[in-house]
Amino acid sequence: LLAAVRRSIGRGGRGVTVGIGDDAAVVRVDAASQRAGSSLVLTTDAMVEGVHFRRSWLTAQQIGVRAWRVAVSDISAMGARPRWVLLSLELPAGRARMPERDVLALIRALGAEARRSGAALVGGNVSRGAALSVTVTVVGETAAKPVLRSGAKPGEVVFVTGNVGGSAAARLGLMRRTRSDGIRGAASAYIRPPLRVAFAAEGCVRGLFSAMIDVSDGLLQDLGHMADESKARIRIDAAAIPVHPAAKRSQKDQGLELALTGGEDYELAFTAPERRAGAIAMLAARHRVAVTPIGFVERGRPAVTDAAGRPFAFARAGFDHLRARSSR
Amino acid sequence: LLAAVRRSIGRGGRGVTVGIGDDAAVVRVDAASQRAGSSLVLTTDAMVEGVHFRRSWLTAQQIGVRAWRVAVSDISAMGARPRWVLLSLELPAGRARMPERDVLALIRALGAEARRSGAALVGGNVSRGAALSVTVTVVGETAAKPVLRSGAKPGEVVFVTGNVGGSAAARLGLMRRTRSDGIRGAASAYIRPPLRVAFAAEGCVRGLFSAMIDVSDGLLQDLGHMADESKARIRIDAAAIPVHPAAKRSQKDQGLELALTGGEDYELAFTAPERRAGAIAMLAARHRVAVTPIGFVERGRPAVTDAAGRPFAFARAGFDHLRARSSR
Repeated sequence: LLAAVRRSIGRGGRGVTVGIGDDAAVVRVDAASQRAGSSLVLTTDAMVEGVHFRRSWLTAQQIGVRAWRVAVSDISAMGARPRWVLLSLELPAGRARMPERDVLALIRALGAEARRSGAALVGGNVSRGAALSVTVTVVGETAAKPVLRSGAKPGEVVFVTGNVGGSAAARLGLMRRTRSDGIRGAASAYIRPPLRVAFAAEGCVRGLFSAMIDVSDGLLQDLGHMADESKARIRIDAAAIPVHPAAKRSQKDQGLELALTGGEDYELAFTAPERRAGAIAMLAARHRVAVTPIGFVERGRPAVTDAAGRPFAFARAGFDHLRARSSR
Repeated sequence: LLAAVRRSIGRGGRGVTVGIGDDAAVVRVDAASQRAGSSLVLTTDAMVEGVHFRRSWLTAQQIGVRAWRVAVSDISAMGARPRWVLLSLELPAGRARMPERDVLALIRALGAEARRSGAALVGGNVSRGAALSVTVTVVGETAAKPVLRSGAKPGEVVFVTGNVGGSAAARLGLMRRTRSDGIRGAASAYIRPPLRVAFAAEGCVRGLFSAMIDVSDGLLQDLGHMADESKARIRIDAAAIPVHPAAKRSQKDQGLELALTGGEDYELAFTAPERRAGAIAMLAARHRVAVTPIGFVERGRPAVTDAAGRPFAFARAGFDHLRARSSR
């Protein structure tokens, strides 16, 4: 397997001195950006069969692409660029065994997808496991100051990229094994989460964002993290939320709830002073990313409220089966 | 859990700008060593319940310590120093659930052990999983040229640190649930693998090693990797191998086989020109590490042979149940 991986992935890449095949990979930080004061940005994320996906939902190739996009989302949320990737695979034995060609397809797809984002798959580990598990570690770089969750300031506008709720609508559909048109339309939001690397990295270098987080636990909960870290209140206009069309259609009145609490959207929520709105719109247009203002940061005890200043009242437990992931 | 981890681990450490609690960790490469031409060294390793350990064999704390020592062994084998660590945990639900205090004890033990090696636990991920699984990613740094598997040159001496076979003897004992004196003596070789970080990093900076690999798959197989990568033949004197006392005692004539093929020793095998032997002996004494010359590198088709130049003939399949791990 290792030999096949080496052949299909190669051992090189930008800044890679030693790739797959030694005890560890050896890479070199870009000297120029290092002098300019670059930082490394580190994140790891696991995608586990039976928890985050079923093999009947995703092909081996789709598992590889999704694992990359989910993991790199945390790098995007810092405004950094991914550079090097490590992949740790747990493969079940016996009846649940994954054919070697599928394992290779998964690794190749992940490697190719990483390459398209400017990163190189430089190493990893393969072990037996009870279920298929894909853990992706990404090392990113940024020459600019990384964008933290804690930078939101009263008066700033809260924005979200793309739309939200599609992934949750798709997972509900997949779990119910329904195949209505709506679900089919949403499936790609779950199967192939959006890639916001280039948009976020350029915005970070241009200093357009004050605070940023990726929407993995659900917009409401993630904005709650931002409010907590920024020691500020966030007021959201529910009518402004870009709800995924399939989430709107999914069930009577459930659309907004899916959009706010469903999670695994891997869009970005960020804040910026109002005077940056023009530059952000131009950046968004250049990267073909929809960006929607959805609310404001206010002084006050950390919380996320609706337009009237009241807490959102959802029976959040309703989507707990969608929320297997307890993120870092 | 995240809040408890933050409290017990903290968010800081040398070179850590942002630790646990944002989307990703932010760290800074040491500017001085970067100017001197430092490289980053990256590795990831998984320890899976039912494959690499059983919970009846190791306490939560021991799992944390062992996961660190196994993962950092690949950093040692490059002659690098570990700097930053990411931990990805998969935790089973239901009856196999691990109590939260045990999860915290595991994380704390790993963090403390990493700190003693000069590294900081900066982030990670917690997910549900089918079995307890501990994936540790280590980012190391080295200002010297990393020591690769491919550097062995004909005429050089092959050395091994510590002794080998103890971990395999212990695992056999644990699997058979025997508790003879011999097994009890060996258990620590499995439970608490050796730490060779300081010895290897200093030897690397002093340019004492030509090629190096950690002994994870078994001495014979790992020297085979070194022979392959170095395009050279390695001749070993079986009588010189430092066999762990418990492996010698384990079963009639099985000691050498355990030492050569058992694996998971996490000692280092390295080569050096004979003229370095004195400096290596002094380095070893300073770090209280036993170092034993066990053979020579020769010109020839890549292979590992005995003192008479013949291939070692072991029924390797005999220990296949010990070899669940397919390393990078």
